[in-house]
Amino acid sequence: MHLACRGHSVSGVDNFWRRNEVKKIGSDSATPILEMPERLAAFKKVHGREISFFEGDILDYQFLSDVMKQTRPDAIVHLAEQPSAPYSMMNRDAAYFTQNNNVNGTLNVIYAMMQFAPDAHLVKLGTMGEYGYDTDFEIPEGFFDVEYKGKKATIPFPRMAGSWYHWSKVHDSNNIMFACRLWGLRSTDIMQGIVYGTRTREMTDDSLLTRFDFDESFGTVINRFCAEAVAGFPLTPYGQGKQRRGFIDLVDSIQCLTIAVEKPATKREYRVFNQLDEVYGVSELAEYVTKIGNKLGLDVRVSHIPNPRVEKEVHEYHVIHEKLKQLGFRPTREISETLQIMLKDLIRFKDRILQKKDAISPKTKWVGGTGSAQAVEVILEGASDKRRMVANSKKSDKLRPQL
Amino acid sequence: MHLACRGHSVSGVDNFWRRNEVKKIGSDSATPILEMPERLAAFKKVHGREISFFEGDILDYQFLSDVMKQTRPDAIVHLAEQPSAPYSMMNRDAAYFTQNNNVNGTLNVIYAMMQFAPDAHLVKLGTMGEYGYDTDFEIPEGFFDVEYKGKKATIPFPRMAGSWYHWSKVHDSNNIMFACRLWGLRSTDIMQGIVYGTRTREMTDDSLLTRFDFDESFGTVINRFCAEAVAGFPLTPYGQGKQRRGFIDLVDSIQCLTIAVEKPATKREYRVFNQLDEVYGVSELAEYVTKIGNKLGLDVRVSHIPNPRVEKEVHEYHVIHEKLKQLGFRPTREISETLQIMLKDLIRFKDRILQKKDAISPKTKWVGGTGSAQAVEVILEGASDKRRMVANSKKSDKLRPQL
Repeated sequence: MHLACRGHSVSGVDNFWRRNEVKKIGSDSATPILEMPERLAAFKKVHGREISFFEGDILDYQFLSDVMKQTRPDAIVHLAEQPSAPYSMMNRDAAYFTQNNNVNGTLNVIYAMMQFAPDAHLVKLGTMGEYGYDTDFEIPEGFFDVEYKGKKATIPFPRMAGSWYHWSKVHDSNNIMFACRLWGLRSTDIMQGIVYGTRTREMTDDSLLTRFDFDESFGTVINRFCAEAVAGFPLTPYGQGKQRRGFIDLVDSIQCLTIAVEKPATKREYRVFNQLDEVYGVSELAEYVTKIGNKLGLDVRVSHIPNPRVEKEVHEYHVIHEKLKQLGFRPTREISETLQIMLKDLIRFKDRILQKKDAISPKTKWVGGTGSAQAVEVILEGASDKRRMVANSKKSDKLRPQL
Repeated sequence: MHLACRGHSVSGVDNFWRRNEVKKIGSDSATPILEMPERLAAFKKVHGREISFFEGDILDYQFLSDVMKQTRPDAIVHLAEQPSAPYSMMNRDAAYFTQNNNVNGTLNVIYAMMQFAPDAHLVKLGTMGEYGYDTDFEIPEGFFDVEYKGKKATIPFPRMAGSWYHWSKVHDSNNIMFACRLWGLRSTDIMQGIVYGTRTREMTDDSLLTRFDFDESFGTVINRFCAEAVAGFPLTPYGQGKQRRGFIDLVDSIQCLTIAVEKPATKREYRVFNQLDEVYGVSELAEYVTKIGNKLGLDVRVSHIPNPRVEKEVHEYHVIHEKLKQLGFRPTREISETLQIMLKDLIRFKDRILQKKDAISPKTKWVGGTGSAQAVEVILEGASDKRRMVANSKKSDKLRPQL
C-alpha cells in the first residue's frame, strides 16, 4: 500500500498460508482481516489506487514464472517465507515445512528472476537472528574484515542461528549471494530486527488493517506483551528476560523497505542491511508496556516463565546499522508513542484476543519437539528446564565455536 | 563392505536414484554393476558376511523412521545426496532437485536420529568445495581463530561454494552443527577431496565392483581423464587447467570413513575433518594420466576446452588436514600406482565407455542453465566464454567478499 501510494505499480502474490495456519493452530489475528478482494477494493476506495494480485504458491514454478512474465518487475520484495521460529521448532512436519518452503521457495524466486527478470532487484527479508546472539563481536552489516595468520580478508560474518526457521534464512542468504555472483542478479538482504506495531500510515481505515498475531508462534515479543496487557494476562518474558534484541517500528520498517526498493543495489551487487532502530532487553520492554498500559487504565503485571527456547539469556549485543541511515532512513517514532497506538487499537479488539486466549502461552519447547518422548528424555538427562539450559550453555561453550 | 569385513553389522539404504539418473542422461557406469540382491549375494559368497538392505527414499520420513527403529544404529554414514555439481547447474529442475533432496533428506536424517537414535554418530559426507576456491587463507578444519576490532573468537571458516550442489552441502553442514548444539547429537562432517579409483580392497571380484561414472555430471576429474585415455579421446582440462584441488584415493577414502566411524565424535560434538591426501593442479593430473596411459600402450593426448564453470582458474590453495592423521590415517597408495590399476581396469571395459562416448564432453554451462536464452544473453553481455570468465572475476572481486 505504501509503495502504491508513492506511485509505484504494485502486484501482490500470496497463497494465504499464514492466515490459514494461524487458524489451524487455534489462534487468529487480533485485528480483523478482510478477504483479499475486499482489501483491494477498500484500498482503491480509500486511496484511489489499484494493486493487482495473484493467488498462488511460489513453490509452484510455473505459477511464479507466469507472474514474472506478466509483471516484469523492477523490484521483488520477497516476504513469502514461513516467518516463525517457534513454529519451526514444533515438530518434524513444521521443521520440514519451514526449510522446504523457505529454501525451495527462494531458490524458485532467484531462478525465475534469472530467467524472466534478470535486471530486477530482489529485496529479501532476512532476520537479525541469522547472526545469532552468542557472539562477543560487534555485528557488522553482512561482512567484516578479519585477520588470520597474518593475512587479511573481508568475509561473511558467521551465521549462528538458533532455530530451523533462522537457519532456513541463512541458507537463503547464501543462495542469494551465490545467485548475484553467478548470474549477476542484484539483491538487498535485510537482517531485520523484531517488528512491532498495529498499522502503517496507509491503514487509515479498519478495512485496511494488517494482521496482528499474538499466539506463541506468529506473535513477536512486543505484540504479544501488548495483547497480554489488553487481555488482562500477565506479560510473560521467557526466563530472566535479559535477552537483548534489535527492534523496529512497523512504520519505520516500511520506510526502510521503501528505501531499499527506491535506491536499489547495483547489478551483481549483494548487499546486506541491518534493519533495526533500537536494542532493548526483553524485561525492559515488559516494563515499557506495563507503564503505558497502566496509564491507559489497564492493570498490567509481569510474570516470568521458564524459557522454552535453547538460547543464551545474558549476552553482549552490539549491532552496526548504518547503511540505511546513510541512504536517508530516519526513525519517526519513539517506542512509547507506538505502544500507546498499539494498546489503544488492541483495546478495541480485546474480545477477539480473549476468544483465542489459549493460544498465548508457549507450548513448543526448543528440545525434542513433540516427537519421541524417549529421545527427549535422553537429551534432557533428567534435568529441569532451567538446569538444562544452564547445562547446555556450559557444555556447548566448550564444544561449539565461541561466538 | 569394508566395515562388514571388519566385523561391523551393516545395513544399506538406497533408492537407486543415481544409477537410474545416469542412464537417463545417456550414460552408464564404465564398470558393470549388478542389481542389489545379486551384489549382496556375491558379497556373501566372496566374503562370507551378510549386509542387510532397505530400498527407499530418505525423503520419506516414515520409511526412514522404520529403518532407524529396526536397526538402532551406532553410526550413520550419510552418502545419500545428489553428489554432482554440474548436474545441479544443468537447469531449474536439477537445481531444485539437488537442494530439495540434500537439504530435506539431511534434515530428515537428523530428525530421525533425535527421535530414534539420539546416541548414534552421524558421519556426513561433505566436500572441500564447501569452502570454495577463492580464499587466500589457509583452509582450516571447519573453524578458525580470528581477530576483529581487538577481540578474538573461534568461528566457522566462511563457506563460499560454487554450485547449487556445493551450497546444499553448506546448508546441511549448518543444519547438522545446529542439531548437535540443540539436541546433543554428535557428528563428523567430512570435507572430502575429489575421490578417484575403480575399486576398494574388498572388490576382489567383478561382481563386487563399485560404479565408475565418466559422464560430465557424475564423473570426477581423474576418473574422466582415465576414461578419456582408454576410449582414445583427448583428456579435456577445463580452461587453463590450473585449478588446484584436494584429492584422495578411493581406498584411502574408505580408510578415513572407517576411522571416523570407529573413533566417533563425543556426545554434542560437531567436528569437521578435511579428508584429502594430496593437492594437484588439473593439468598436472592430465600429465600423470598421459604418462601412465602411454606406458600401458594407450595413445593419450591433452586438449584444453573452454571452461564451462564460473570459477577462478588461478588461485592459492593451502589446506590443513591433520585431524585424520592424528587419528591414525596413513595414505597407502601413490597416485601413479592407482592410475595404473584404474587404467588396467578400464581397458577391460573400453567397449562400455565407447557405447556412451557422447556423455563425456560437457554440455552444462555454469551461467543460465538450459533456461531462457534471453536471460543468458543479458548476463553474457556479448562476451565470449573466456572473456566472460575474466570479466566476472574482475567485477566480482570488487563486489563480493575477498576470500
